[in-house]
Amino acid sequence: MTVTIIGLGLIGGSLALSLRQHGLAHCLIGVEQQPAHAHRALELGLVDKIETDLGAAVRQADLIVVAVPVDAMVSVLPPVLDATAAHQVVIDVGSTKQALLAAVAEHPHRGRFVATHPMAGTEHSGPDAAVVGLFEGKTMVLCDTANSAPDALQVVEQLFRALPMRLLYLDGADHDLHTAYVSHISHISSFALALTVLEKEKEEQRIFDLASGGFESTVRLAKSAPATWVPIFRHNRLNVLDVLDEHLHQLQHLRELLAREDYAGLEERIQQANHIRKILP
Amino acid sequence: MTVTIIGLGLIGGSLALSLRQHGLAHCLIGVEQQPAHAHRALELGLVDKIETDLGAAVRQADLIVVAVPVDAMVSVLPPVLDATAAHQVVIDVGSTKQALLAAVAEHPHRGRFVATHPMAGTEHSGPDAAVVGLFEGKTMVLCDTANSAPDALQVVEQLFRALPMRLLYLDGADHDLHTAYVSHISHISSFALALTVLEKEKEEQRIFDLASGGFESTVRLAKSAPATWVPIFRHNRLNVLDVLDEHLHQLQHLRELLAREDYAGLEERIQQANHIRKILP
Repeated sequence: MTVTIIGLGLIGGSLALSLRQHGLAHCLIGVEQQPAHAHRALELGLVDKIETDLGAAVRQADLIVVAVPVDAMVSVLPPVLDATAAHQVVIDVGSTKQALLAAVAEHPHRGRFVATHPMAGTEHSGPDAAVVGLFEGKTMVLCDTANSAPDALQVVEQLFRALPMRLLYLDGADHDLHTAYVSHISHISSFALALTVLEKEKEEQRIFDLASGGFESTVRLAKSAPATWVPIFRHNRLNVLDVLDEHLHQLQHLRELLAREDYAGLEERIQQANHIRKILP
Repeated sequence: MTVTIIGLGLIGGSLALSLRQHGLAHCLIGVEQQPAHAHRALELGLVDKIETDLGAAVRQADLIVVAVPVDAMVSVLPPVLDATAAHQVVIDVGSTKQALLAAVAEHPHRGRFVATHPMAGTEHSGPDAAVVGLFEGKTMVLCDTANSAPDALQVVEQLFRALPMRLLYLDGADHDLHTAYVSHISHISSFALALTVLEKEKEEQRIFDLASGGFESTVRLAKSAPATWVPIFRHNRLNVLDVLDEHLHQLQHLRELLAREDYAGLEERIQQANHIRKILP
């Protein structure tokens, strides 16, 4: 199958590597707005060629993957669908879904589109961040599949089952709610933690000296690119604000317990937090 | 050299494994209050024997390592020093230092004691958490070394350089301040994040389904034991409250930017957070 990938960053690039590795794509075409990224993607062998004309790139492919930041997605997906014929399938891989689904709800080729979100990533970005095996064993969320044509859905299901990925079906609203809870808040928390440490610890050498694996793990997501995350927070603003308020409440509660030296209360809260161990062993 | 380790949990157990692996201890004696942990430590081969009498355990050793939670440390270290003779060396491996240093400041055998803190750990606890290689390549903080006898200090420096670890010298007050900034706050943040997600996401299967590597990494420290961390927060209360207030401030600022849709401001803050990448590449 010929696959066109629009956006050759971490997700688009890693998907190219996975599809090639599993023999699922015999020809990979890239579309990439940044010339340096396009050049690098060719160098790294992520794609076989770069197309500068979007329509031409779409017309040559069996499957088109839109892997640009979620704000760009809303403007890129409609013209992609315009150029899509009845035998082709289009997916996105964005971290928010409601705005995108609304943008193409009335599109005459809506049925060719399957909204997907692989629950996988790293803190790096750009074509150099592409890694083999990023998606294997992870969850792929498929959204509002009732609005996709059955044959298009089947192509996507078979493809991602082959990687293999676990498929999970959610409607767009549920997707945005649950990813705010489980994914988006941990980025906010990590950004704020990095800002905290950079503000308090003016001696950068001390951060380097004292950083243990635990600190590095907690602050890792703070290395993530604003070009990816600002649009996600923007698209999912109300859900993110809601879970962020809960997070502030939990932190303020821990602060209050420590301030008034309620160590039994603090112990009880930590035991409660430890419950995450049962869900993510 | 014969080494007695008091407290056979994650740190004490891992140190036993490292000392044995590097041929730095020919005999390892354990002291452990919980019979199940003592039994397990023997089974795992962390130590050669268990001593129930503290004085006897101390008298047999060249080096005594106190590896109990920091609140217990304050009561265990003085009787250990009471039983310590002029040729022996005692270290602790606790995450807070000022209270402990104050507790032994006037002890007649103060010179035999070297306060150390290895900047390494995991979210697990107990003898089963002991892992080979936990300390290799990490930083070992040595505190208030001017109050240790030069020969005792030399034994400790040679030992940990051999693992190998990087040695860093701080006074007790600086140690507690900087570890609050770099280590303790990331635990508070992770506990609060776990509590947030457990509160908002009532469908535990959803957490499991949607948890990516990023979420798991941010919430990993929330699996840490209250028996270890409540005493650390208690000992370092004022420093932890201070950095926690900064963390609340940073989170509230991100919330405010998102609430008023100041996406340029949000982008600027995330770029600032990304600066952590330069310190921890």
